[in-house]
Amino acid sequence: MSKSIHLDKIPTQPTDKITKAQAEKETVKLIEKLSVLQNKLYAQKEYAVLIVLQGMDASGKDGAVKNVFSGVNPAGCNVKSFKAPTDVEKTHHFLWRINLECPEKGMTKIFNRSHYEDILVPSVEKYVNEKGIKERMREINSFEKGLIRNKTIVMKFYLHVSHNEQLRRLEDRKTDEHKRWKYQQEDIAKIAQHNDYKNVYDKIFKHCNEEAKWRIIPADTKWYKNYKILKTIVETLEEYKIDYPEVKL
Amino acid sequence: MSKSIHLDKIPTQPTDKITKAQAEKETVKLIEKLSVLQNKLYAQKEYAVLIVLQGMDASGKDGAVKNVFSGVNPAGCNVKSFKAPTDVEKTHHFLWRINLECPEKGMTKIFNRSHYEDILVPSVEKYVNEKGIKERMREINSFEKGLIRNKTIVMKFYLHVSHNEQLRRLEDRKTDEHKRWKYQQEDIAKIAQHNDYKNVYDKIFKHCNEEAKWRIIPADTKWYKNYKILKTIVETLEEYKIDYPEVKL
Repeated sequence: MSKSIHLDKIPTQPTDKITKAQAEKETVKLIEKLSVLQNKLYAQKEYAVLIVLQGMDASGKDGAVKNVFSGVNPAGCNVKSFKAPTDVEKTHHFLWRINLECPEKGMTKIFNRSHYEDILVPSVEKYVNEKGIKERMREINSFEKGLIRNKTIVMKFYLHVSHNEQLRRLEDRKTDEHKRWKYQQEDIAKIAQHNDYKNVYDKIFKHCNEEAKWRIIPADTKWYKNYKILKTIVETLEEYKIDYPEVKL
Repeated sequence: MSKSIHLDKIPTQPTDKITKAQAEKETVKLIEKLSVLQNKLYAQKEYAVLIVLQGMDASGKDGAVKNVFSGVNPAGCNVKSFKAPTDVEKTHHFLWRINLECPEKGMTKIFNRSHYEDILVPSVEKYVNEKGIKERMREINSFEKGLIRNKTIVMKFYLHVSHNEQLRRLEDRKTDEHKRWKYQQEDIAKIAQHNDYKNVYDKIFKHCNEEAKWRIIPADTKWYKNYKILKTIVETLEEYKIDYPEVKL
């Protein structure tokens, strides 16, 4: 068990002194690096990469997918957006549908929401009791440990947005014709539960980061959030021996 | 049944008078258009898009995926590369694994190789008799008709490369450190069967294009091949009413 994290004490605004122009310049280089790393990963078939994006509604998960991963070869990179479990999924263990979507070696998979929703929603809606939630956390830790042992590089990001910014973005969705389709009545209800969700996230960070640590990304400023995620991914991948395989002809 | 096509009589070199520089300029605009179309498709959830890439080894299927689709949001666009059927897949009908990979509404799926391999390989290797092959063709037509009726926009591309160019590229793979991993001994055997495969493709074009027509892309010049595929996709999608959905708040 790791030490406590309280989202309330963690900034939602940029923590580095980087300007938007600098970040944009860096981003071009980082995307090129990511693209090359991914080609090598695909050729080598030694590691899989799993990127978990969590965050409340309007925290910028979709934008992160679009901005960080447009530019990499889609042959090696797939996205899975997890919605509320379907009737069939509900008849299985909560990790069943997650297992089905885990990346094979050579591939990068991005989870837009993930198995952590199965802690978050039942905790806030109170349809799984505390003992059940603890059991799920234990199972998640064991599950992620297994992935890592099997050479999946797991990176978990929490996109940390303030309640005010969240409300502002939701208002924007109503008027922006390119975003209006995203607006749903339920969003309002969920955003009203901002504090409840935040409390569950605190618990997740305390109990579910033994195997793959959580990275909490300040997300009130969109370009900074995207830049930080991209930079973290590239730097993490560079720690591994990812290269074209040796081939004897 | 449509009229006969003979690959031998179809050019593998560019058929338009466009320069590489012009194509590159056009490509930037087309990728932007494709990216916007895909965002709308994803929001609207009215159509699915299925892009089938077929072509012999080294005809540039992987390059087409990379060059045409890097730049679109991977949240709405996935690639499935079909390999030789696995033991489990072999215990099912040949369309079983294809069905599992078909795109849901809102999504674009690229098949790098496809159900057409289940005509090609057994025809050349002669482990399905002629009656069986005809039956498969009939089933493919019916299957694609069903997809189209269910609002999948199906586009099928054959990347048409000459035997000489194919041999040249295979030699390149041996020496290019970024491509060497792709080189496999079996490729040589397959390329020796160039004419056998070409004959089966002629049959496919004759019998399997009622529901979704084949587009034969000259593929000896890589930039031209990629540009042609991209342009065809954008022009085809523009024929449909793909737009952000009307949302009443």
